[in-house]
Amino acid sequence: MSEHLFDRVALIGIGLIGSSLARALRQHSPQTRIVACARRAATLAAARRLAIVDETTDDPAAAVRDADLVVLATPLSAYAEIAARIGSSLKPGAIVTDVGSVKEAVIRDVRPHLPPGVEFVPGHPVAGTEHSGPEAGFAELFRDRWCILIPLPDTGPDAIAKVRGMWEQVGMRVTMMDADHHDKVLAMTSHLPHLIAYTIVGTANDLEDDLKSEVIAFSAGGFRDFTRIAASDPVMWRDIFLNNREAVLEMLQRFSEDLTALQRAIRRGEADTLQARFTRTRAIRRSIIEAKQA
Amino acid sequence: MSEHLFDRVALIGIGLIGSSLARALRQHSPQTRIVACARRAATLAAARRLAIVDETTDDPAAAVRDADLVVLATPLSAYAEIAARIGSSLKPGAIVTDVGSVKEAVIRDVRPHLPPGVEFVPGHPVAGTEHSGPEAGFAELFRDRWCILIPLPDTGPDAIAKVRGMWEQVGMRVTMMDADHHDKVLAMTSHLPHLIAYTIVGTANDLEDDLKSEVIAFSAGGFRDFTRIAASDPVMWRDIFLNNREAVLEMLQRFSEDLTALQRAIRRGEADTLQARFTRTRAIRRSIIEAKQA
Repeated sequence: MSEHLFDRVALIGIGLIGSSLARALRQHSPQTRIVACARRAATLAAARRLAIVDETTDDPAAAVRDADLVVLATPLSAYAEIAARIGSSLKPGAIVTDVGSVKEAVIRDVRPHLPPGVEFVPGHPVAGTEHSGPEAGFAELFRDRWCILIPLPDTGPDAIAKVRGMWEQVGMRVTMMDADHHDKVLAMTSHLPHLIAYTIVGTANDLEDDLKSEVIAFSAGGFRDFTRIAASDPVMWRDIFLNNREAVLEMLQRFSEDLTALQRAIRRGEADTLQARFTRTRAIRRSIIEAKQA
Repeated sequence: MSEHLFDRVALIGIGLIGSSLARALRQHSPQTRIVACARRAATLAAARRLAIVDETTDDPAAAVRDADLVVLATPLSAYAEIAARIGSSLKPGAIVTDVGSVKEAVIRDVRPHLPPGVEFVPGHPVAGTEHSGPEAGFAELFRDRWCILIPLPDTGPDAIAKVRGMWEQVGMRVTMMDADHHDKVLAMTSHLPHLIAYTIVGTANDLEDDLKSEVIAFSAGGFRDFTRIAASDPVMWRDIFLNNREAVLEMLQRFSEDLTALQRAIRRGEADTLQARFTRTRAIRRSIIEAKQA
């Protein structure tokens, strides 16, 4: 598993995902030279202090020069500008990939800026924690998780194979999907859960003061799991919701209908309805445990 | 911490909470004789096989005879009938407590059946997992978690002190609260989160088949935390919602309003609103970590 896939990798963004990938590459592909690019000097200083990259710069165009692989790992709202800035500095044959949680919007924002001869392989390593920043990363983040790649009609099979190889090298299982389908699946498995967690923690935050302090003390009853999710990076999540608007609103509509039905069952005291609904959700948990994603 | 508080404890119900308490009492109060009562023979056989109790019976009246402490630890819907059956068998000076997640309904259901000279100390150890049954219990379940006791106007201070002492013995921090206030706090910290988790996992379960299988594979993005909560005991939770109807519906109303506001912000593309809301929820997570409830 220490095959040498890329001589030089440019990580544009060195937060939780970027810094975890840097650490994992150090471990599994020690000959690869890694350059990190970030806007803030403090972020770059942290990356140097952690000794997880070889070079740092705040200039995306400089970062990608001579890179064999460029990984976009910033919040989604920065992608278009970064793509515009790096387009003319990419070397022929370079591969550009990304780690964004939305794929149609990424293709819309990035693709027009890439010159002919550069390969684009949109990707999404489905892994993360509620922590952010270069200090929060760790090499094992990707282990046994899924990475979804989006093959575009004009992407060469070699480019896909190399990106796939890198994610497999750091422990991921890789699968292929259409961008549209990806965005629907993730709206349900990730975006809607985050939206709901942000909402309920906000609802608790607005409670009268006497209730609010106790919500924190007695959070062990279920609430604290939501607070962990709702501690995720605000800018990253703002961008996800704005860039996957349609699919998120569709899943949210379905959720709201189901919640209204349960609300009515509680109001009317429909014991059988409640028990039946709570029983079938156990089966999904079992499937997740069997799929080793628990 | 191995003070001897009760000679004989009757556990009515020996699921996750009852069996965890049995294990913890074995450890911290080895002289205490424990009798377990359950309706199903298989449950009692499991309790014997696990060697966590001294006696078993399916007759609540027999279980409580000579008991110094009776702990109701069944789903809430069984409380009234159990209270009616044990009332005349309780010895003078016996203490009755419970572990239910709702307190006003418990007082309503149990209190009328207890004879004079028997002390009633409603209680709620706020601890649990998504697993149920006697095999799921463990002695450390209560460690560093809160137990809420509800002192009633006619409860003797000695009885409260002894119940408090037992929960402290097994590692809990104990606090006092009015039943009404307890039911509101728990509606927010526990009941609403469970209702939402059950709902979203149900929503996912109703997806078209091609989406559904992928929801399981890609659950690492946030969804799997909800599936864990939504794997909790269906009968127990049915009873909680039916017995804390008013407070749950009130908190649900607040949540729905907040969700609608976020939905509108997404639809209108209000980036600043989203970012501001997602930022303030991080503070609640920090408070929970500081309160050592994370």
